[in-house]
Amino acid sequence: MEDVLTACTVTMNIPVAWGEMDAMGHVNNIIYFRYFETVRIEYFNRLNMMGYQNQWGIGPILASTECRFKMPLQYPDTVIAGTKILSMEEDKFVMGYEVFSTKHKRIAADGEGVVVTYDYRNNKKVPIPDDLRVKIMELEKIKTGR
Amino acid sequence: MEDVLTACTVTMNIPVAWGEMDAMGHVNNIIYFRYFETVRIEYFNRLNMMGYQNQWGIGPILASTECRFKMPLQYPDTVIAGTKILSMEEDKFVMGYEVFSTKHKRIAADGEGVVVTYDYRNNKKVPIPDDLRVKIMELEKIKTGR
Amino acid sequence: MEDVLTACTVTMNIPVAWGEMDAMGHVNNIIYFRYFETVRIEYFNRLNMMGYQNQWGIGPILASTECRFKMPLQYPDTVIAGTKILSMEEDKFVMGYEVFSTKHKRIAADGEGVVVTYDYRNNKKVPIPDDLRVKIMELEKIKTGR
Amino acid sequence: MEDVLTACTVTMNIPVAWGEMDAMGHVNNIIYFRYFETVRIEYFNRLNMMGYQNQWGIGPILASTECRFKMPLQYPDTVIAGTKILSMEEDKFVMGYEVFSTKHKRIAADGEGVVVTYDYRNNKKVPIPDDLRVKIMELEKIKTGR
Repeated sequence: MEDVLTACTVTMNIPVAWGEMDAMGHVNNIIYFRYFETVRIEYFNRLNMMGYQNQWGIGPILASTECRFKMPLQYPDTVIAGTKILSMEEDKFVMGYEVFSTKHKRIAADGEGVVVTYDYRNNKKVPIPDDLRVKIMELEKIKTGR
Repeated sequence: MEDVLTACTVTMNIPVAWGEMDAMGHVNNIIYFRYFETVRIEYFNRLNMMGYQNQWGIGPILASTECRFKMPLQYPDTVIAGTKILSMEEDKFVMGYEVFSTKHKRIAADGEGVVVTYDYRNNKKVPIPDDLRVKIMELEKIKTGR
Repeated sequence: MEDVLTACTVTMNIPVAWGEMDAMGHVNNIIYFRYFETVRIEYFNRLNMMGYQNQWGIGPILASTECRFKMPLQYPDTVIAGTKILSMEEDKFVMGYEVFSTKHKRIAADGEGVVVTYDYRNNKKVPIPDDLRVKIMELEKIKTGR
Repeated sequence: MEDVLTACTVTMNIPVAWGEMDAMGHVNNIIYFRYFETVRIEYFNRLNMMGYQNQWGIGPILASTECRFKMPLQYPDTVIAGTKILSMEEDKFVMGYEVFSTKHKRIAADGEGVVVTYDYRNNKKVPIPDDLRVKIMELEKIKTGR
């Protein structure tokens, strides 16, 4: 498995569905963003982000995302999607994503997503809460320490 | 437009997206159920089903659905999806669906869906409420009267 | 695992993606047909159906499909999708499908699909070729013999 | 309609499907990339890109794409997706995308896509063919001249 993938904090195995290929015979471009989303949500679960949102009304919003396609994917294959948080600012953080083809043993795509912390009760962006910030640092540190 | 389509109570025009075609170069089979859903939700809106559910806690659940594929669809095309309620029983009704290709001027698929009225507050099936039943009959009668 | 699932000839584990849930907070109905398709294609691969189609121009077409929804699915969960061929006629066969929630240890949905053998070179339905019929019987027998 | 949208070379009206909303009750992020794709393919059709690919074996590959989300979308709504080519380099061009909510009369998202011209027969990137370059300039000029 490539270094970029082992550097990820959270990874998931996702089988490629035949029906996700488009008329070009390749996995359609929007499915890569589904991979990003799947591993993003898994990361959020490790932070207990949903519980946090239910309790405090502060949750994540995807502000922007980008994907660079390196290699077409085809059924049958299983991808490993991985993510880690690359940087944190006052009211947002940047996640990096990798999509690895286990059949070809190559990175098929990588990308980023900018996630804003949003106060749904007052409808405005808010700074990343301190305890969430600590959790993220712990999760990333634990990763580094492996 | 075919008779089966003019017999529908609600119809909607839906453009075929290129990305909805699969590796066979045809619109993937699951997209037909998206067409059924889209026109089903539109029908529910005409009944103000969501308002009903918010007020009384009684809403629709799709219990089963079926599609018969008559002709493959391809981009570019615009389908007309249509629906009507075929029958009502104590606690469920049956919707009929049609998918018409405007490019080929032919029915591409038809099907049915069985919708159960469910009491979300008491977690059980309930008879179709009388006022909802009346609304459905009016909607279908209005249609018949055209 | 339920008896209906162990009776399947081919099964696959498929993780539920968060993004496959709709605004009701349940896995959207069309995704169940994606599960059916995924395990249908896997079954076809075991028959080497694609190789057969490339060599002889005869391949499968989904003529109709139906799903009965037993229980809503939610992320996180992993479903086991299973299929077996229920019956064969002159020019078509019927596949049965099961979708099992590993979280709830219950069948979430079942259904059927009618698959027609089609001669793409002469654009007409053809009888199931004898060697394909034998392969299917072997695959189903192997299963029965477990 | 906003200036950014009138500045687009190709626009398309796309109804929002209820089933494209996710568990947050908003149109899922991957659907925005479907909007981009739909209008990208429409643009390619105006260039007769598919005919070009069939004749010369040179076609477009999406190398990367990005979306900035400005406002959540909800059913019912109809978006207008628009695109124009922002710049051309030796062997690639950059398309700009806009997604406009007709219900809210606001841009819901914008983004870009980098498209590489690829020689499928020799499996390598190639310069944008001169006649394709001319067609693009004509299409963009016609637009400017409106």
